[in-house]
Amino acid sequence: MTTQNAVGNSFAVVRQYAPYVQANWGYANHWYPALFSEELAEDGVKGVTIGGHDLALRRSQGKTYAVSDRCVHRGVKLSGKPMCLADGTITCWYHGFTYDLSDGNLTTIVGNPDDALIGNVRIRTYPVQERNGMIYVFVGDEDFSPVPDLSTDLPMKVTDDANPVAHLLGEHTVVKGIHRRLVGNWRLAAENGLDPGHLLVHWDNQLVVALDRALPLGLQALSEDATEMIDIPDGPKGVMNRYDKPELYRPVLENPKVNMTARGTVPHYFRVSLWVPGVLMVEHWPISNFVQYEFYVPIDDHHHEYWEVIAYRAETEEERKEFEFKFDNFLLPLGLLDFNNRDVFAREATEEHYTRFDGWTNEVLCDMDFSVVSWRKQASRHLRGYFSSPYHDED
Amino acid sequence: MTTQNAVGNSFAVVRQYAPYVQANWGYANHWYPALFSEELAEDGVKGVTIGGHDLALRRSQGKTYAVSDRCVHRGVKLSGKPMCLADGTITCWYHGFTYDLSDGNLTTIVGNPDDALIGNVRIRTYPVQERNGMIYVFVGDEDFSPVPDLSTDLPMKVTDDANPVAHLLGEHTVVKGIHRRLVGNWRLAAENGLDPGHLLVHWDNQLVVALDRALPLGLQALSEDATEMIDIPDGPKGVMNRYDKPELYRPVLENPKVNMTARGTVPHYFRVSLWVPGVLMVEHWPISNFVQYEFYVPIDDHHHEYWEVIAYRAETEEERKEFEFKFDNFLLPLGLLDFNNRDVFAREATEEHYTRFDGWTNEVLCDMDFSVVSWRKQASRHLRGYFSSPYHDED
Amino acid sequence: MTTQNAVGNSFAVVRQYAPYVQANWGYANHWYPALFSEELAEDGVKGVTIGGHDLALRRSQGKTYAVSDRCVHRGVKLSGKPMCLADGTITCWYHGFTYDLSDGNLTTIVGNPDDALIGNVRIRTYPVQERNGMIYVFVGDEDFSPVPDLSTDLPMKVTDDANPVAHLLGEHTVVKGIHRRLVGNWRLAAENGLDPGHLLVHWDNQLVVALDRALPLGLQALSEDATEMIDIPDGPKGVMNRYDKPELYRPVLENPKVNMTARGTVPHYFRVSLWVPGVLMVEHWPISNFVQYEFYVPIDDHHHEYWEVIAYRAETEEERKEFEFKFDNFLLPLGLLDFNNRDVFAREATEEHYTRFDGWTNEVLCDMDFSVVSWRKQASRHLRGYFSSPYHDED
Ligand code: FES
Ligand code: FES
Ligand code: FES
Repeated sequence: MTTQNAVGNSFAVVRQYAPYVQANWGYANHWYPALFSEELAEDGVKGVTIGGHDLALRRSQGKTYAVSDRCVHRGVKLSGKPMCLADGTITCWYHGFTYDLSDGNLTTIVGNPDDALIGNVRIRTYPVQERNGMIYVFVGDEDFSPVPDLSTDLPMKVTDDANPVAHLLGEHTVVKGIHRRLVGNWRLAAENGLDPGHLLVHWDNQLVVALDRALPLGLQALSEDATEMIDIPDGPKGVMNRYDKPELYRPVLENPKVNMTARGTVPHYFRVSLWVPGVLMVEHWPISNFVQYEFYVPIDDHHHEYWEVIAYRAETEEERKEFEFKFDNFLLPLGLLDFNNRDVFAREATEEHYTRFDGWTNEVLCDMDFSVVSWRKQASRHLRGYFSSPYHDED
Repeated sequence: MTTQNAVGNSFAVVRQYAPYVQANWGYANHWYPALFSEELAEDGVKGVTIGGHDLALRRSQGKTYAVSDRCVHRGVKLSGKPMCLADGTITCWYHGFTYDLSDGNLTTIVGNPDDALIGNVRIRTYPVQERNGMIYVFVGDEDFSPVPDLSTDLPMKVTDDANPVAHLLGEHTVVKGIHRRLVGNWRLAAENGLDPGHLLVHWDNQLVVALDRALPLGLQALSEDATEMIDIPDGPKGVMNRYDKPELYRPVLENPKVNMTARGTVPHYFRVSLWVPGVLMVEHWPISNFVQYEFYVPIDDHHHEYWEVIAYRAETEEERKEFEFKFDNFLLPLGLLDFNNRDVFAREATEEHYTRFDGWTNEVLCDMDFSVVSWRKQASRHLRGYFSSPYHDED
Repeated sequence: MTTQNAVGNSFAVVRQYAPYVQANWGYANHWYPALFSEELAEDGVKGVTIGGHDLALRRSQGKTYAVSDRCVHRGVKLSGKPMCLADGTITCWYHGFTYDLSDGNLTTIVGNPDDALIGNVRIRTYPVQERNGMIYVFVGDEDFSPVPDLSTDLPMKVTDDANPVAHLLGEHTVVKGIHRRLVGNWRLAAENGLDPGHLLVHWDNQLVVALDRALPLGLQALSEDATEMIDIPDGPKGVMNRYDKPELYRPVLENPKVNMTARGTVPHYFRVSLWVPGVLMVEHWPISNFVQYEFYVPIDDHHHEYWEVIAYRAETEEERKEFEFKFDNFLLPLGLLDFNNRDVFAREATEEHYTRFDGWTNEVLCDMDFSVVSWRKQASRHLRGYFSSPYHDED
């Protein structure tokens, strides 16, 4: 039974991005952020879940490692009660199975150093990289090879800007941010980030009002090129809303039918792009010369970890301190929290329809969704694999 | 496996009211109360769910409207964050889809007034009537026609009483009440309301004790006519316990086996009837000349909205004020709350058996259930349709 | 998809204790503790659930009874709102169905003493025994006969000890304890209790440190006899870790690979055994001459009631008082709570793997699990029946 009278998307439309529609659990075989560096102290252990994979991250002698968070013995989470007795190893708190962090091999059992299993079983390890304050892990099929370069799973380095924003892997790049577990499929979050049609949820945000930002009611694309497909050989794949090209967009400044007129007098340039496997870049946001990156990391089919990261190029210690001060007292409260909390509300509100009412075939897209559709097609073309449910007690 | 030794109802018995047993989600194509008038302010929006239909109610320029609460675009609830920018319309807070309240047509999109969808898609609208302080909606199949008169889905107008109680649609009728979401299928609630066998849960209620009401331990029906089937042509269908006819009932005043004797010395006349699609009328309750109406509005198969409404005929402003004073300080706390909370407990306690242990075929009815069985049969005869699960992610 | 690289148990191994692996809901046709005597006051009613059976326990004129907690009429729990109007009966609070506690027969209905059902339907009754402060019920198939002696479902009476600990049914035995509902299948709890490999979770417990107990890192079994299979004809069946025989175990005192050395200087003798259908005996624990019994009573397939009972032989009133003082101020806070809370954590942490990742075939047992495997085999041989889900709304 449906309570709507709309015709949903036609089969022909959905077929154009069918691989994407199937990716309920997310894209496998990609690099995803797991933790900020400052969240993992020396000798610390933290558990995270990405695409159904439970991972234990551990820092030992300065190096970071990621291993399966399931003890091979009786399956408890190693991170449930961190126990690290020797450098370069992680010990299960229950019966003392101790694994080498570099290869996952069982190296000893605390209470039985002579056990026959020692040297013969192991837990899985995951590739890790720590760069500019963030710890990334490569998650997917164990035999996937070769592991692509981390840079292929991050937004491209901006080159066509007089004052290009900081790249996540760039020299002198500093980052600060937050992440939180949200209800909602990762794709609903990613699409919301890119979507030029959701300006309405932000029109009365404190940030926008305080800075008197000129925000149109909407943006009408004037050409197919308004959202550019970007496919860098051996590099990032994504789509970019070319807000930098005024000939591609007509801003909608009033809609008399609903008595709305765009507010604000201060023009502000920014540009939005979205990258496989689900990373947003908003150049010159929340303010010029800064950049906001967002990751929508799949946890399971109905939850994602929402990452909000502000990056900046700080060449001196003073610049870094100024960045941190701005972050703590302006960018975090007004940007990542007050502004983006509207997006959080919207994404969580969308989940029910896509879960319970089969939204992927029961949605009615409009002109403003050209951008989202481009993303779906682009994401469908650059698929390395799917995550799937790890649970045996489900279908 | 069953832990009981009882024989359940025979197949022959259940077959007599099989249509009713199938109505897990409730009876479709009926009028149901959605809100009290005072709950919907001018320009207000409220969301309610009836039989799996999510509805958004809105009052604009004094008139009330009901539309589907699912935006055709990407399915969020319009009531999630009410946004009404122009009279006679409702705007989705996410991307600005704006619908005409009278026919559901998409009339504009805030940020794109030229979108091709405008005028070509719509959300469903539902018939609404507002009468004597209550807002009713007609919910069911969209093509159900003609929509029956509201009065057919309310208890009949009483005519055989020297001092007939107020009808819900009557001139001068004033109502006050409450409603709340309860665990439990709507039928368990309806049957509890009618059931003459549940006096035991009320025998020590404050209302009964304070007024020294003579309440028997039980009521033994002496004839098939004790519960009358009422079928008014083009009007209400229901059953009535004819407590007004002393020749039909023998009150049970003591049961020595359990050392119980009926308490109270003040006789009190009232009469109970139950009407399709699940509306109770208790004439002269909580006190003479007042009437308590109850609606058991299905939300889904395991929850209903429990409505308790006291009605009274107030011809002057003074009578209305006196009614409101009595309601606030006596009828509400002692009647709708203290007294009926016992019923709430009982209904919620019954749900588990009917849900998890297939209670409809695994119950053992007794003589006192003649009244409930009459209701089941009557309800089975007057079926306009079933609600069913709207969810795609369930069987 | 699995995130581990381990081979699970081979089919040949699992086959050795296949009946046990199937017992998700527990072993039927056994005696289980339902309440401590002090929890059931004269005329009191309490509801408990064992292996999916909902039971109402009632004490009337000093005698305890157990009946099905589901009213045959419309299925509410009798214990939901205890109502006992006459000795030797229990009355349903909803419509007054009144049952004889000794045979479950419907003896009257409060409001209709002449109902045709009276004398013709009944609820199930369960055998009950109250011994030394504990109330046991026999739960399983209604036609299971003969009901075995209670002693067959309790740990054996110890005879091979110079100072044998108190038996649960012994003369002069006094007991004190607690019980609580835990997440986790009953078998994970039982195995944790026996398992000599879980010493690691206790190595820094307050009890161990305060008493400077010499606790090894692990115990290496030197022979198949280290865990003895005990099968007493017409009596208890179980397995016992023969810690009393030094030739059977080699304590592991250090493991240089993880920089661990056993702590403590005071040797302490205790002995652990586990009995069908899931009862642990730890002789001389928490301190010498006392004994800790634990029951892991299945509630459903994912929850058990964890019973911790300390027993002592007190021949005089003074000895009993001294026992109670020690219990309240030492054995309870340091033993049953601080010490065993570590076990609670471990069991609850293990549940997820066995539920969602099919742990019974996806575990990798080690040498120290010889004891657990012996238990599984022994339990497989002494099976009187399975509990199963009572719910109709599950597969
Ligand atoms: S579960 Fe990890 S060592 Fe036993
Ligand atoms: S979901 Fe309503 S306008 Fe987009
Ligand atoms: S449900 Fe127990 S008497 Fe009716």
